[in-house]
Amino acid sequence: MEQTVAELAQWLKGRVEGDGQLTLSSFAGIEEAVAGQLTFLANPAYEEFIYTTSASAVLVSDEFVASRPTPKTTALLRVGNPYEAMALLMAKFGSEGGADDDSGESASMVHPSAFVDESAQVGKNVRIGPLAVVEAGVVIGDGTKLGSGVVIAKRCVIGKDCILQAGAIVGADGFGFAPADGGYTKVPQLGNVVIGDRCEVGAGTTIDRATLGSTVLGEGVKLDNLIQVGHNVTIGDHTVIAAQTGIAGSAKVGTHCMIGGQVGIGGHIKVADRTKIAAKSGVSASILESGQIVQGNPAIPIRKHQRIQLAVRKLEAELASLHLRIDAVSPEAEATNLTNN
Amino acid sequence: MEQTVAELAQWLKGRVEGDGQLTLSSFAGIEEAVAGQLTFLANPAYEEFIYTTSASAVLVSDEFVASRPTPKTTALLRVGNPYEAMALLMAKFGSEGGADDDSGESASMVHPSAFVDESAQVGKNVRIGPLAVVEAGVVIGDGTKLGSGVVIAKRCVIGKDCILQAGAIVGADGFGFAPADGGYTKVPQLGNVVIGDRCEVGAGTTIDRATLGSTVLGEGVKLDNLIQVGHNVTIGDHTVIAAQTGIAGSAKVGTHCMIGGQVGIGGHIKVADRTKIAAKSGVSASILESGQIVQGNPAIPIRKHQRIQLAVRKLEAELASLHLRIDAVSPEAEATNLTNN
Amino acid sequence: MEQTVAELAQWLKGRVEGDGQLTLSSFAGIEEAVAGQLTFLANPAYEEFIYTTSASAVLVSDEFVASRPTPKTTALLRVGNPYEAMALLMAKFGSEGGADDDSGESASMVHPSAFVDESAQVGKNVRIGPLAVVEAGVVIGDGTKLGSGVVIAKRCVIGKDCILQAGAIVGADGFGFAPADGGYTKVPQLGNVVIGDRCEVGAGTTIDRATLGSTVLGEGVKLDNLIQVGHNVTIGDHTVIAAQTGIAGSAKVGTHCMIGGQVGIGGHIKVADRTKIAAKSGVSASILESGQIVQGNPAIPIRKHQRIQLAVRKLEAELASLHLRIDAVSPEAEATNLTNN
Repeated sequence: MEQTVAELAQWLKGRVEGDGQLTLSSFAGIEEAVAGQLTFLANPAYEEFIYTTSASAVLVSDEFVASRPTPKTTALLRVGNPYEAMALLMAKFGSEGGADDDSGESASMVHPSAFVDESAQVGKNVRIGPLAVVEAGVVIGDGTKLGSGVVIAKRCVIGKDCILQAGAIVGADGFGFAPADGGYTKVPQLGNVVIGDRCEVGAGTTIDRATLGSTVLGEGVKLDNLIQVGHNVTIGDHTVIAAQTGIAGSAKVGTHCMIGGQVGIGGHIKVADRTKIAAKSGVSASILESGQIVQGNPAIPIRKHQRIQLAVRKLEAELASLHLRIDAVSPEAEATNLTNN
Repeated sequence: MEQTVAELAQWLKGRVEGDGQLTLSSFAGIEEAVAGQLTFLANPAYEEFIYTTSASAVLVSDEFVASRPTPKTTALLRVGNPYEAMALLMAKFGSEGGADDDSGESASMVHPSAFVDESAQVGKNVRIGPLAVVEAGVVIGDGTKLGSGVVIAKRCVIGKDCILQAGAIVGADGFGFAPADGGYTKVPQLGNVVIGDRCEVGAGTTIDRATLGSTVLGEGVKLDNLIQVGHNVTIGDHTVIAAQTGIAGSAKVGTHCMIGGQVGIGGHIKVADRTKIAAKSGVSASILESGQIVQGNPAIPIRKHQRIQLAVRKLEAELASLHLRIDAVSPEAEATNLTNN
Repeated sequence: MEQTVAELAQWLKGRVEGDGQLTLSSFAGIEEAVAGQLTFLANPAYEEFIYTTSASAVLVSDEFVASRPTPKTTALLRVGNPYEAMALLMAKFGSEGGADDDSGESASMVHPSAFVDESAQVGKNVRIGPLAVVEAGVVIGDGTKLGSGVVIAKRCVIGKDCILQAGAIVGADGFGFAPADGGYTKVPQLGNVVIGDRCEVGAGTTIDRATLGSTVLGEGVKLDNLIQVGHNVTIGDHTVIAAQTGIAGSAKVGTHCMIGGQVGIGGHIKVADRTKIAAKSGVSASILESGQIVQGNPAIPIRKHQRIQLAVRKLEAELASLHLRIDAVSPEAEATNLTNN
């Protein structure tokens, strides 16, 4: 882009403090930004950088109050939500796109190295990346993008304007076995996966097909990388889930939930709408009241969880103050098991 | 299928309560089943649906006692194990298969887009999906199916009648490094992976080759998605492991174990036969007595673990009742880190 | 190889106890080694095997003291670090390489089934495996090896002499969304990933591109399988990370750290140099002092963590000794949710 601070302010309906005539040609993070670049401040942990930045402009919130002077060579551009504003500008003016960008040499619509079964129904403006696989009977909505090596297995349905990052696997068999003769018999997985419009599925994430019926992602669901979604799971609209979380079979997750990384949700569990689940929590009982924040394994309301953690530390401190000897075990615990045979 | 309830009862050696002449044409879960469909009740959590279902028949166990009347339009078909019976019927009569089904457009034996090294030995009735890779010296037994994008690295051996779901990776190098000069030297990984007959490996699951010798899966082992199996691990016959569990190098897991999701098992650990490990547990010491159920991190017998959890809650309640002020930290804990720069 | 024990001792500058004229033709683990084979003893847990082995020679440390006689048919070869010595010998004499070995039928430089964009810059002696994808603008340094199905997305930069195991995904979009209209707007991910020299990236591991700037791995970083590295993360030189660990966006991990499996590191967290983090820990606050060993969730110094665990067990034991009745809940906890509908 080649835009002045004032021009961007007008486009964003924001307000300039400082020199609106400075020209911005690219974007950068606040730690690295130099003259000619636009950056933003959304997370208070990064506030220190605004006092030393060489950026020509910084997007800040309307409420931001500088605790000391900011550089004279840096204009502040005040908006309601600097992070969202940055996202909008990057989408509009970003000169080079990311992994899902259409520009560049490899942006053919269906890459010649991909395999798309002839019975698949592929919508308009769909992009299918190198070495992706679209199996028989799959339906892909308009505007959806499949990254390199994505697999969509038989009869799964992907909505419009979705993005599936590289290596995502949709529609592998669910994990169903019935005990038989001292071993297990496979339960056929006859269903499929149905993904709503405007979903994003992260790299290496796996979403299993239903035993019967469908595993369902609602509209606008955002899944990070290496997430496991079991058979017959339902995830409600606009729920976002961070990396490496696992959701066991037949669980029902509500709408507008925010789920941290490495969370586990048990089979058949229900999670109410607008639940927030802290990273690494284990949800082993249904959460029926909406809007709660939970943490721990088993996950409980976060304040309760934190009070319990504090009580335990108090206990340890008290025992220590009584000079009770507690011998720690395996002090040099081999954290990593990297080097042994 | 087009079968009457009575015909299925005869085939299953089950017993009909209600109208045996109803015709069943397809399968469905108990929440969605309608007239003409067969469903089943195995998990008591779903009992309520049997009183309102429109299904024409429900497989129930011999012991099932209805707490109120079931619909007159629904026959009950009593069998020893309704889940296993459903699995058998779905395998026999399921009109459309899942991800591993042979029917359909993409069911060539070795998909033309797959790469199979000419030195690989591939058995009879093997199916290799689109864009799968079978490297040099690999041996694949009769009747085994490799999903889309599966990778079998050099010299690995896969038994008969196995199913490897899309994106499974067998035989990548184990993680072995020796400290040297302030960094690390790679320990060559010269071994392979040997997988027994009738195993299933989930989507995106990785099984590393041995440093020397073999990483071994016994017969009938079932691995869910995104599991990590380190170098030189041994997993005994008929052990089943849920998604995202990790087993570090040289661990030996016994036969007939049931391991939950997101479990971690440390390097060189032994796990006795028929051990059950609750989800999210961390096994950092060998479990030598067979048949135990363990939970927690470190994993201990489940009743002990639960007593400890209760003791801690009691402690917190007691402190709370003394009106001790415990200030909770970071109350609105950012569960997900989704939106910051 | 066909080497005598004495020849190897000379090469390693080691010392022989026993018959130096024995000929060694291959390698094996100490549990399986037979006559004609060389093995090693590095982990004390395996000491028992040295008293019964049939191996012709065992690499042991200079400090090793046998507690009873070792077999007369087995020479001991004393060196400073037996594990490193074994690694060196395996690299020099290993007759068949592992997944990353150049020899064998499939060892063409760029496999014909791989897709390499014509704008990518590929160095000398680079090996690109079957069905790998190298997208537009990628740079790959000399001597680097990409396994089967690896994906390197647009404009990412890989250093020299790196090994990317099968199915690794470098440069998928970071997980960035700004709340908007009750749902989320995607934040474009305009940056890339830069990986230093001599790094190893495990099978199925995902390293996301930066929102702006670069996600960076320093020199000699070793990542195991199924690890998630979020956008804008920095990992310092010679840090090693075990499988299934996740590092959230913008975290900065120092140099020479050792991080266990299934660890979670929160967004924007800093981890000081030479930190060791025990498996399954959750790091939710920065670790500013270098050289610590931490454990737990939240991760704290390991001795403190272990004292707290012991205090809790003491508490439970005390309550139990008071004959307080604590009713355990869900005693037969369904560890795995394998078999329900």
